[in-house]
Amino acid sequence: MGEKKKALIIVDVQKAFDDKKWGERNNLEAEENIRKILQLWREKGWTVIYIQHTSDKPQSVFHPKNEGVAIKEIVKPMDEEVIITKKVNSSFIGTNLEDFLKLNGITTVVITGLTTPHCVSTTTRMSGNLGFDTYLISDATAAFGMKDQNNTYYDANTIHNVSIATLHDEFATILTTEQLITDFIKAH
Amino acid sequence: MGEKKKALIIVDVQKAFDDKKWGERNNLEAEENIRKILQLWREKGWTVIYIQHTSDKPQSVFHPKNEGVAIKEIVKPMDEEVIITKKVNSSFIGTNLEDFLKLNGITTVVITGLTTPHCVSTTTRMSGNLGFDTYLISDATAAFGMKDQNNTYYDANTIHNVSIATLHDEFATILTTEQLITDFIKAH
Repeated sequence: MGEKKKALIIVDVQKAFDDKKWGERNNLEAEENIRKILQLWREKGWTVIYIQHTSDKPQSVFHPKNEGVAIKEIVKPMDEEVIITKKVNSSFIGTNLEDFLKLNGITTVVITGLTTPHCVSTTTRMSGNLGFDTYLISDATAAFGMKDQNNTYYDANTIHNVSIATLHDEFATILTTEQLITDFIKAH
Repeated sequence: MGEKKKALIIVDVQKAFDDKKWGERNNLEAEENIRKILQLWREKGWTVIYIQHTSDKPQSVFHPKNEGVAIKEIVKPMDEEVIITKKVNSSFIGTNLEDFLKLNGITTVVITGLTTPHCVSTTTRMSGNLGFDTYLISDATAAFGMKDQNNTYYDANTIHNVSIATLHDEFATILTTEQLITDFIKAH
């Protein structure tokens, strides 16, 4: 990733995703992998941006009055780190994320977080389309199983893998946590 | 869809997608289904918006000098219909699509076109996130098979079906062409 300025984006790693209503999830290691990347990022002094989902609906697990809105302890933000709240899937819609990146001269973004098919995929698509050099860390995100409009069920691994396959080479460079860390240790 | 103003969006139905380089495709009926919807839309006098992909790269099948950039004859635009060109996957990035819809009081969009996992999915995600009441017509879009970052191949039907499953209930209402036409005949 050379000498260009880079940000780690951590999307929606919130307690709300521990709710049983989401069903089967793949890659339970996602949070631990994000923690490892975050630690490296902090050691380097690079920019960390947390994205936090909120909902205006009182019954939502993401409503500010619900403890689910909190970012998980394992990647708890430090005081000086940036938290951007959003109300839709894309971290770029209704937020100042694009302006923040541009004003800070950040041209490379590394995306991690929850969940692969929804907020992570949408954020990755817009990041690539907006011209940022975009990396998605495949094992630092996770999916839940889901049903389609005909009630056909797709398991969490299928949702995760196909979501990433459709982003690969079109919107982002896909790396594992190990590949990212090895690359960074070599490059910096 | 009631009395709200509505637009049919036809994404990237261009000759370039007939190129053999794309490999296996599912749903060869997509263009014929779009033609049926287009005919109904024209009869109703509703807004039709064509999205046309262009590339600055001379070697691209979407470069303006290449015949692939042309919209397919089966859904050829009429003189008064709107054509919006784009250079990335999302029809909303680098274009005036959002402004056009808002200035024309259009609150409902019906999305069709090529290809399901890339330009159609990205456009559908942004449409929903921007607050438009969004319908995606499942058999009026199509996918190509593709490989992921580990060279694992996913066939066109899997890419198509999982792409739509991840949009369902989160970004858009999924309908078939028949459901759309029946709904419209009943409602108008």
